[in-house]
Amino acid sequence: MSNKIITISRQFGSGGRTIGKELAEKLGIPCYDHELIDKVAQESGFVKEYIAEKSEYSERGGWLANALSERGFHSGMSNQDYIWSIQRKVILELAEKESCVIVGRCADYILRDKAECLKVFIHADMEKRAKRIVEKYGESEDTPLKRLKDKDKRRSTYYHFYTDMEWGNVANYHIALDSGVLGINKCVEILADLYHSNITE
Amino acid sequence: MSNKIITISRQFGSGGRTIGKELAEKLGIPCYDHELIDKVAQESGFVKEYIAEKSEYSERGGWLANALSERGFHSGMSNQDYIWSIQRKVILELAEKESCVIVGRCADYILRDKAECLKVFIHADMEKRAKRIVEKYGESEDTPLKRLKDKDKRRSTYYHFYTDMEWGNVANYHIALDSGVLGINKCVEILADLYHSNITE
Repeated sequence: MSNKIITISRQFGSGGRTIGKELAEKLGIPCYDHELIDKVAQESGFVKEYIAEKSEYSERGGWLANALSERGFHSGMSNQDYIWSIQRKVILELAEKESCVIVGRCADYILRDKAECLKVFIHADMEKRAKRIVEKYGESEDTPLKRLKDKDKRRSTYYHFYTDMEWGNVANYHIALDSGVLGINKCVEILADLYHSNITE
Repeated sequence: MSNKIITISRQFGSGGRTIGKELAEKLGIPCYDHELIDKVAQESGFVKEYIAEKSEYSERGGWLANALSERGFHSGMSNQDYIWSIQRKVILELAEKESCVIVGRCADYILRDKAECLKVFIHADMEKRAKRIVEKYGESEDTPLKRLKDKDKRRSTYYHFYTDMEWGNVANYHIALDSGVLGINKCVEILADLYHSNITE
């Protein structure tokens, strides 16, 4: 039997990462989120903090400025492009190796041609996400609303840059769930059930 | 206990209507689709065919031309606006009266303030939908692809006009399902389970 992969794309503060972890635990398979950063760090030589920032978020200053300012080390690639290429390779290798859950990092796009891949998007309304990030990460100088909009914008720009698709567009996912209304546990339950089902594709 | 409503928005050819019917049957509650047209016909005095066309699809010629050419009968409203106002009233009354499934017709927006309302979007890729509409409705002069694009465009324009929201935007729905990959039966099963669950909102 070929490996089954679940990719989870998520809005910041929607609990997508928690859903990924709990789902993987329930299914007895690994969940790659921070673990992916470790692997990319090993292969690329960059420190983890730098990869965490570069492997999923576009720069506030815009891509062109970023690409120009950092170009040079890796055959003319920017550091971000270089990290993308390693991250892509790591994700493809993981999908070949074992069934797993992969959170974020355009894994849905990278694994788009893999038959046994369930593509999930987790979202929630601003109010519920704002409450969640304050509980989880504490207060900061910026308002929760500004933090949410900033993170979403940077994830969305990153996704669009590397995939040429729209982040959060319903057509790109097999299932999209509002975790704020359905609740984390119900999302995990639905996805675990789908993992065990024979999907028609 | 208050009534529970499931609204199903759907891409043309995605099987959303079939999912609505089968779901309602499984839950033992009514499904309003064509039945809504009958009710609006009774209240408005227009024939069913006219309502079927005007109650969910924008005109090919664009809204302004349509509104101008038909304005006059009902306190200055276009026929389409008049039908919208009756349809809105019928949907609100149904939601007050009983638990049910409502397919299309911006019911998700009309019932947006109702707590016990599960908002669903059903979609599938072009290839699967093209196959489905040819099987279901037969061939026509236009290619299946053109028919799909035309219907989606007109539904989307209609939805945007009356709701000022984006049709098919993941944030507008509690759950969005790719019926082409998950299959009709699995979609029905997931939604029936959600109907019986206590949703956190």
